Amino acid sequence: MPKIDGTRLLADLRALARIGAYKTGVHRPTYSKEDMESREWLMQRMRDAGLEPEMDGIGNVIGRTPGNGPKLLLGSHIETQPHAGWLDGAMGVIYGLEVARAFAADPACAGLGIEVAAWADEEGHFGNFLGSKSFCGQLSEADIDASANKYDGTPLRDALAAAGLAGRPRLTIDPGRYRGYLEAHIEQGADLENNSLRIGVVSAIVGSRQHRIVFEGVQNHAGTTKMAIRKDAGVALVQLAAAIYESFPRLAAPRTVWTCGRITLDPGSPSIVPGGAEMLFQFRDTDPVLLDSLSATLDRLVAEANAGPCKVTCIRTSTSVPTPMDAAFQQALENAAETLAAGLHQRMPSGAGHDAQILATRIPSAMVFVPSIGGISHHWSENTSDEDLVLGCAVFAKAAKNILLR
Amino acid sequence: MPKIDGTRLLADLRALARIGAYKTGVHRPTYSKEDMESREWLMQRMRDAGLEPEMDGIGNVIGRTPGNGPKLLLGSHIETQPHAGWLDGAMGVIYGLEVARAFAADPACAGLGIEVAAWADEEGHFGNFLGSKSFCGQLSEADIDASANKYDGTPLRDALAAAGLAGRPRLTIDPGRYRGYLEAHIEQGADLENNSLRIGVVSAIVGSRQHRIVFEGVQNHAGTTKMAIRKDAGVALVQLAAAIYESFPRLAAPRTVWTCGRITLDPGSPSIVPGGAEMLFQFRDTDPVLLDSLSATLDRLVAEANAGPCKVTCIRTSTSVPTPMDAAFQQALENAAETLAAGLHQRMPSGAGHDAQILATRIPSAMVFVPSIGGISHHWSENTSDEDLVLGCAVFAKAAKNILLR
Repeated sequence: MPKIDGTRLLADLRALARIGAYKTGVHRPTYSKEDMESREWLMQRMRDAGLEPEMDGIGNVIGRTPGNGPKLLLGSHIETQPHAGWLDGAMGVIYGLEVARAFAADPACAGLGIEVAAWADEEGHFGNFLGSKSFCGQLSEADIDASANKYDGTPLRDALAAAGLAGRPRLTIDPGRYRGYLEAHIEQGADLENNSLRIGVVSAIVGSRQHRIVFEGVQNHAGTTKMAIRKDAGVALVQLAAAIYESFPRLAAPRTVWTCGRITLDPGSPSIVPGGAEMLFQFRDTDPVLLDSLSATLDRLVAEANAGPCKVTCIRTSTSVPTPMDAAFQQALENAAETLAAGLHQRMPSGAGHDAQILATRIPSAMVFVPSIGGISHHWSENTSDEDLVLGCAVFAKAAKNILLR
Repeated sequence: MPKIDGTRLLADLRALARIGAYKTGVHRPTYSKEDMESREWLMQRMRDAGLEPEMDGIGNVIGRTPGNGPKLLLGSHIETQPHAGWLDGAMGVIYGLEVARAFAADPACAGLGIEVAAWADEEGHFGNFLGSKSFCGQLSEADIDASANKYDGTPLRDALAAAGLAGRPRLTIDPGRYRGYLEAHIEQGADLENNSLRIGVVSAIVGSRQHRIVFEGVQNHAGTTKMAIRKDAGVALVQLAAAIYESFPRLAAPRTVWTCGRITLDPGSPSIVPGGAEMLFQFRDTDPVLLDSLSATLDRLVAEANAGPCKVTCIRTSTSVPTPMDAAFQQALENAAETLAAGLHQRMPSGAGHDAQILATRIPSAMVFVPSIGGISHHWSENTSDEDLVLGCAVFAKAAKNILLR
């Protein structure tokens, strides 16, 4: 079996984390100086590993391997959320690099091709899965024209030009080239840790539905306006949110999640009856039928809310469909996990989105999770034990070999 | 009876509204260039009316009258909320000026003294009722040292110096000088208009209790954190607010009001389970026993909320006690209203705070309301019909004479 070099793996992860280091984490936004430096660093590491790297017009870095044998694509992303962790994305890319090196050093893997990808902007500084969508033929030039940095408004075109990527061709997938795609990632939750497990085999990536719910009432003086004649948009919001929190548990599966992440009242002054209010509400599950049932309930609650004094409008702002992972790949990952960590693995959905859900639209794809200490991610204190980092890569390598040898 | 000159009254109101005009309203924040210009303008109008004006070290303008007869103090404020209306405060001050002029012109009022005050910063740009509190001996030098502009943080001392008021003495009340204090104001609600009434005799100014309620949970990824282990501060907030909205109506009197004017979730991101949340909540009534009962209910609901996964803390940020208006003055106002607008008046509480609640701590005080068109105030479109403006002043003058002749 291809032999992972744990010391080399950890050294590369730490070297990459120094580019844009922030406390014990990393600040490496898409197309920033640090992001581009990390892509150049990765290309050099790929060359050292015998891969032939190329950076394309959206910033994807893909390390190819010559030869005509069966090939597997491994990857993730290397830009980060602002002031975030050192492993989210980076781990999956360095796993791919390490597996490629291990295959190259193992005569038993001769002819088996490992290629490695770092997809641009998985973290959505400018869009949603820009790099993997581009590679899978799902990002048009018009999409690029329309995109801008969500923090500072910089047009994507300007950011690409500043990063030296303007005019460079974009690479697109040849589905016939690959057996499929594997991605490793930190869990970003605490389920593995809480159950003392070391490996998660992802069964599906959840679908999500995001909404902006707008409440229109009448702004009034909070001292002089009798309760009976108020049209308080904040009251309407609280009552709808409370109704959602009461109804959703009755429909939910064990892994269904729903979240109101933002509430604003307008004008937001202590002595003014709010004339407007807004909430952002999302829910996620792996079952499209359940998602439809939740949508129907949300629609019904919004309709009921409109019987009150305020106008309530629910706008679906984004939708992603649940993506089951390839069954045979799941089995290969589970077999590898059972060999290397018997009884310490589980199948589980991914509650977060990943590039694998885009790749899965073109080639068989699957994912493996390693534990996140305390379930923390998108924060500079994000971490995973060295032992789990090394074990996860060994499982990844073993599964990759089994998939290529089928 | 002293004869009000409606044309002169309206002309003065319109002249004052031109200082800091904004659309059909006024932007004249406390101690701004426009505010100070309006105080100088008022002092000149006072001189023209035979009063002896003085501006003191907090910006109060007080127009005194010589003579030893009984005196009544009439007033309100002339600074405005940002981009607000032309009548809130200004009307009460110009009513005082017009009544002083009408008394001076009426031989039947010889020896009856009308004095006029424009209190500084009733609108709370720097504090709460700075001017009337200063006049009533309830504002210390330390209070002034500690105050700052709530919009831009300018220290009150700096604002006073920039307005040319540094080092000027502050005037304080000689309670023996006055029979009492009368204040006229727009209703700032729609109760008079909705009931086709033209005059409101204020029975009491409500007391209010304001709170900041803080919710502490744990911030998490909205996709990867199972519902069962979440400590969602936003959910805790919504559930407490819903419980308040359910409980308070069962305790409330017809005029009790309660308002949540602001809600914030931290960090306020669509895909992050809020780790923190905060709401501003206030209630008002004229009955101190009812206020205590509402406080006890709020305390109980907060205690119950603490049985959930988040820590909930309720901080009382301000308290004002209900202030009954002087019974004899109310009767004088009601008699005058019945004479001039038979059947078109009512007694009613003031749901908003006014300088009269401060003056009432030192001398008998009362208030009269005129209708607000559409109930609108604290907005540039605030307005009252010319007929109602003139009628209100006539009632005010008649009541003043009756009070002084008792």
